[in-house]
Amino acid sequence: MHVKGANRKTVLEELKRFNRQDQKYDEGKILCSMCTKPHPIAKKAYLMFLNSNLGDPGLFPGSLQLEREVINELASLLHGENCVGSLVSGGTEANMLALLAARNMANVKDPEVVLPKSAHFSFTKICGMLKLKPVYVDLDDSFRVDLSKVEACIRGNTVAIVGTAGTSELGVVDPIEGLSDLALKRDVYFHVDAAFGGLVLPFLPNGGKFDFQLPAVKSMTVDPHKMGMAAIPTGGAIFRDTQTIDHLKTETPYLTNRFQYTFVGTRPGASAASAWAVFRLLGVEGFKKIVDKCMKTTRLLTNELKAARCCLVTEPTLNIAAFRSPKGTKHLAQSLWQRGWFVSYVPRYDCIRVVVMPHVQNQHALAFLADLRDIEKI
Amino acid sequence: MHVKGANRKTVLEELKRFNRQDQKYDEGKILCSMCTKPHPIAKKAYLMFLNSNLGDPGLFPGSLQLEREVINELASLLHGENCVGSLVSGGTEANMLALLAARNMANVKDPEVVLPKSAHFSFTKICGMLKLKPVYVDLDDSFRVDLSKVEACIRGNTVAIVGTAGTSELGVVDPIEGLSDLALKRDVYFHVDAAFGGLVLPFLPNGGKFDFQLPAVKSMTVDPHKMGMAAIPTGGAIFRDTQTIDHLKTETPYLTNRFQYTFVGTRPGASAASAWAVFRLLGVEGFKKIVDKCMKTTRLLTNELKAARCCLVTEPTLNIAAFRSPKGTKHLAQSLWQRGWFVSYVPRYDCIRVVVMPHVQNQHALAFLADLRDIEKI
Repeated sequence: MHVKGANRKTVLEELKRFNRQDQKYDEGKILCSMCTKPHPIAKKAYLMFLNSNLGDPGLFPGSLQLEREVINELASLLHGENCVGSLVSGGTEANMLALLAARNMANVKDPEVVLPKSAHFSFTKICGMLKLKPVYVDLDDSFRVDLSKVEACIRGNTVAIVGTAGTSELGVVDPIEGLSDLALKRDVYFHVDAAFGGLVLPFLPNGGKFDFQLPAVKSMTVDPHKMGMAAIPTGGAIFRDTQTIDHLKTETPYLTNRFQYTFVGTRPGASAASAWAVFRLLGVEGFKKIVDKCMKTTRLLTNELKAARCCLVTEPTLNIAAFRSPKGTKHLAQSLWQRGWFVSYVPRYDCIRVVVMPHVQNQHALAFLADLRDIEKI
Repeated sequence: MHVKGANRKTVLEELKRFNRQDQKYDEGKILCSMCTKPHPIAKKAYLMFLNSNLGDPGLFPGSLQLEREVINELASLLHGENCVGSLVSGGTEANMLALLAARNMANVKDPEVVLPKSAHFSFTKICGMLKLKPVYVDLDDSFRVDLSKVEACIRGNTVAIVGTAGTSELGVVDPIEGLSDLALKRDVYFHVDAAFGGLVLPFLPNGGKFDFQLPAVKSMTVDPHKMGMAAIPTGGAIFRDTQTIDHLKTETPYLTNRFQYTFVGTRPGASAASAWAVFRLLGVEGFKKIVDKCMKTTRLLTNELKAARCCLVTEPTLNIAAFRSPKGTKHLAQSLWQRGWFVSYVPRYDCIRVVVMPHVQNQHALAFLADLRDIEKI
């Protein structure tokens, strides 16, 4: 820190210089992120509640009410009745809270979690922290977890099984209904990581059953700061019942609430306001329109990729396209990066991944395809 | 979620109604929070970087640079050389990362952590999560952890000892120098939780040694969203060296960085911008002025409390006053609440706690004292 401060104008000018180095979603070159530009109303709402702290909710009852309404809306979208939960820092915290509740509830020696090989990398982090042994299960030909192999992995010390409704790498939805049946039969905690898909699948014509309508689903992760277009950080941890979150309870000795059920203590009320505002402005119809547009752009992209002799890893369920080049996928990714396209290269599947978030317009997809054809000389 | 959305004007009006229910820092009634109104420049900066995600830093190199500069400034303020670290969600995450690194580094059976009885309640949460046994040590007459009792608790399976530089309840600073000597002698990881005091003590005339200038200090928590006047969420986790954070490393299979060293994945770049802007605008001199003003108001308050026959739990080291009433402290707290004063009642010490944050002006302290005298009939 300098001894003397700078004047306001200088500080803002310097900040603008840093800001210019950051990529801008509007330019349509960010094809690798599950986040997007917050909706304009989310931005307005965030700013209005910037001072609010949900970690001390007695001071901010308006913000607390917004959080409750967002949780209720997420729960009802996911067919949950009388669910409870919190807005948290993101998918990692939500997934962690679920596994922590499951671990504490089971209270067994050498606890294990059974999860698909395609589960989000945060689970590795979480299992390390919580001293859970992750038991990774192979996928079938459609990149969904293999149910019979999951069953074979469930043992007396299995505290939870996990399914993903929209994997980060391919946007694939695991056989959640089958996993729920299995969890019921074997009486084990079942968590669904729908961080991404939880705000896409409910708006698709054939989203399928992936949520609390399946009786074994105990908890779900769903992040408004992904397809919910809320500002970062706005994650969602939803639990079927209060008995589950009792296992997360920490006493707070001097705050305006008596207990906390989140990992993070001081939490921005602005997150709740930003998610609430988007939900209220768009409604189900508004979300359907946006998801529909993203899916149309995804199909445009995948059709053209096929025409350009690229091969899809799998037909998209969600607004994520993953493909390979017959001429070498990693090389294609590098060439695309050189031209300023931010795509992910996924070593595990040797594929390029494109996430068609709301900021990705048809024109961006077409410009991307033109560059790809130029590189591939097709 | 409603099927149909609402129009923009309605949404903003509804949000304003919720917002009116929240307490406002400017009114000076919030005397129980370690957070405050973000500095106006922090608000500007936060908004400018609202889209940025430090979880995918290849997309946001400007934000990443801001984060690095904030970490370097915090480290140098805390006499650290070549330190590393991250901006995180807050003190809980920073404390957790420190204990996780310590636990993983030690890699012993039945790991234990030795910590003062006055340590922040987040450590209970963290120990539960990380399966660390917390060994709580009694305090001495000045509410600082008893060094000889700490030493007696260190065993072969002790993975860390913790000291607090500014306890949440009394603002007391543990004997950090003595703890450092002990940690060196017994070769154990030493973490200092300076979430609050880390941005107060460096600006006091006699802040004492509490930081990386003490050789055993391996990591520190220091939260810009407390006395740093940055927007929530802006916590800081600072580590002495890269070897320590190697124990926190998680591989990221599809992002623009290869490894993550934080718990939270998607992280707001806006946090970095908001802390950076305050540091740059104020400099050390600006911070000194603000801390000096808070300390003067604290002394005004404690002098007047004594004149009103209240008894201080301890003379304040930081801008926190804790006191008791001869006529019954809990009853006084309740009467103050009824008059709209948000003070904390701390059952552990049967005391009222007032945190004199930058939003608490002399006039607020005087109005508070007038109400207190009126209640106490003095």
